[in-house]
Amino acid sequence: MSAPFQIAAMAAELLARIRCERPRVHCLTNTVVQKFTADGLTALGAVPSMTFSMEEIAEFAARADALLVNLGTLDAQRRQVIEAAIPVIKGRDRPWVLDPVKCHFSASRLSVAQGLLRLRPAAMRGNSAEIAALGPLPETVVVETGERDRIRRGEESVSVLNGHRYMPAVTGTGCLSGALLAAFLAVEPRQPFQAAACAFLVIGVAAEMAAEHARGPGTFEPAFLDALAAVDADDLATRGRIEHGQP
Amino acid sequence: MSAPFQIAAMAAELLARIRCERPRVHCLTNTVVQKFTADGLTALGAVPSMTFSMEEIAEFAARADALLVNLGTLDAQRRQVIEAAIPVIKGRDRPWVLDPVKCHFSASRLSVAQGLLRLRPAAMRGNSAEIAALGPLPETVVVETGERDRIRRGEESVSVLNGHRYMPAVTGTGCLSGALLAAFLAVEPRQPFQAAACAFLVIGVAAEMAAEHARGPGTFEPAFLDALAAVDADDLATRGRIEHGQP
Amino acid sequence: MSAPFQIAAMAAELLARIRCERPRVHCLTNTVVQKFTADGLTALGAVPSMTFSMEEIAEFAARADALLVNLGTLDAQRRQVIEAAIPVIKGRDRPWVLDPVKCHFSASRLSVAQGLLRLRPAAMRGNSAEIAALGPLPETVVVETGERDRIRRGEESVSVLNGHRYMPAVTGTGCLSGALLAAFLAVEPRQPFQAAACAFLVIGVAAEMAAEHARGPGTFEPAFLDALAAVDADDLATRGRIEHGQP
Repeated sequence: MSAPFQIAAMAAELLARIRCERPRVHCLTNTVVQKFTADGLTALGAVPSMTFSMEEIAEFAARADALLVNLGTLDAQRRQVIEAAIPVIKGRDRPWVLDPVKCHFSASRLSVAQGLLRLRPAAMRGNSAEIAALGPLPETVVVETGERDRIRRGEESVSVLNGHRYMPAVTGTGCLSGALLAAFLAVEPRQPFQAAACAFLVIGVAAEMAAEHARGPGTFEPAFLDALAAVDADDLATRGRIEHGQP
Repeated sequence: MSAPFQIAAMAAELLARIRCERPRVHCLTNTVVQKFTADGLTALGAVPSMTFSMEEIAEFAARADALLVNLGTLDAQRRQVIEAAIPVIKGRDRPWVLDPVKCHFSASRLSVAQGLLRLRPAAMRGNSAEIAALGPLPETVVVETGERDRIRRGEESVSVLNGHRYMPAVTGTGCLSGALLAAFLAVEPRQPFQAAACAFLVIGVAAEMAAEHARGPGTFEPAFLDALAAVDADDLATRGRIEHGQP
Repeated sequence: MSAPFQIAAMAAELLARIRCERPRVHCLTNTVVQKFTADGLTALGAVPSMTFSMEEIAEFAARADALLVNLGTLDAQRRQVIEAAIPVIKGRDRPWVLDPVKCHFSASRLSVAQGLLRLRPAAMRGNSAEIAALGPLPETVVVETGERDRIRRGEESVSVLNGHRYMPAVTGTGCLSGALLAAFLAVEPRQPFQAAACAFLVIGVAAEMAAEHARGPGTFEPAFLDALAAVDADDLATRGRIEHGQP
């Protein structure tokens, strides 16, 4: 497994590739965070698209380099379009990310999340309550975000200790992190565990950089977008804090 | 009736309780302001949820400590989910707030607003044109926002003179204030008139604090979220301007 | 055709009229950018409304001074409401703007855009790929936004050289510019070519002013709203850069 220094170096490399290749990330996400998600992807260097129209999804998914499936404010229309999009993405051998937002709040949402997991996303992001509700997840790369962000796959595990308390005080930072994860998977689909560790290192370091320019959660949000655009190899090497641990 | 000092003191107490108890506020609000509303509730210390999916609303309403019903961009789906949510909230004896946004623009929206008033919200927020369109409202706590925010119930009335001209220049500050009102009612459901006065004192003082860090309406918005997170008992006591008056 | 100085002077005059007359702009736009669009219109001095409910659209369109039709995240509901709104606006002889966002991505969206063009919008905004996909557009005022914003109608053409690289890094600046264009057309419906040149001069100058207060694309966004509220005749005269050219 990669040492701390190697994760920072790989993260810098993937970040450079995102900024150069500008992967398209199609987001089937909740209406609350659409703009923030699109802004965060653009700040990072990726290209977002957001439609959840049934008439359009096949053509948009056919142009996407990765797909985000976020279950916040899930309704019948988005469920239907998710089912249409995933086969297009999988048929093109492109990665997709599942974010089972608040799946422990609603039996119907939990059942959708469990069905989607069987379609094998490249990675999944959630908090501890969401992940616990879903039960065992042996083959998927799972990112459990919280005070520390833990990335695991079976027995492998690594934690990113960076981040800031303003992150959970801004609605949609978790949802956005799922989209940024998809951008990293778009440029490194063959190593999803490493790509996920890199994504959350970049996110955590950017959050710390942003907090230096914020007076509170309100000004943290634009500062975080600035930091996603500004974070570089040096920042990752000097600020990154990684811990290897048991799953 | 409470004197100015008492409202500031009670507002500080309710604010402390919101930050400690972290009440859940479910928002059935328009898509335009969902993110801003969620950010404002989180900044204040409450916990937002926003779904308007029919399959999910009963379970989300069953976990909520208060409900916001906002009629902006009202369509058939949201009307249906509002009708499903209110009995759940009332059945659990939790408060709900009605915000009849632009009900004077559309006969169908006005008719929905009048029907909802008969279900007896704990409080209602609107501007003068919206409130005038609805006719007499004897038993409800009514907050008429404008240059001054007037809270009344029958013969009782109190005005908050705080606030800032940038407030109406940011889309959704009115909608957000309805959600913040719901958070105050969540921790003080038995005294809705006083809780409403406290909510609008906090909002008005936060707006004045925010304006000190803003260059215009754009930078006012993040500064207002910062101020909702920062406002404390001292700010309320020293800045609060209350006037008691006839209804 | 107007010289550079004249465009700046006319832009200042139209801006003053927007701030005085406060035209209503109804926006049938994608859910991603609703809040940013409403904030931008308000900052400029116009009054936004955003509903896309079938029950309400006729009454809202009947009060609007201009209409924006934006095809981002286009679904069946918004298509239907667009078809209902345009006849109301045209029947009242008010201008409407078409923004055929990503019409080259989807056959169904392209077909909707082509059908709408036959209903003769006062002006259209798009990037080069979108405009190329639509084919020849002889009678409409067309604004092609990019590094320079080119306004043309048949053989007439003028380019605005102002703007900033942060603009495309913020989701929805293009969509917002279509709404601001509608506000200018609302106060000057008889000279749509000139009104469009004025709109994009104001937008480009505001972007340059905003960049002076931004650390990146995140802080550019609130600064751009501040600048839309602050930009004045002096800024337009001293900063405006116009070029007359072949279509």
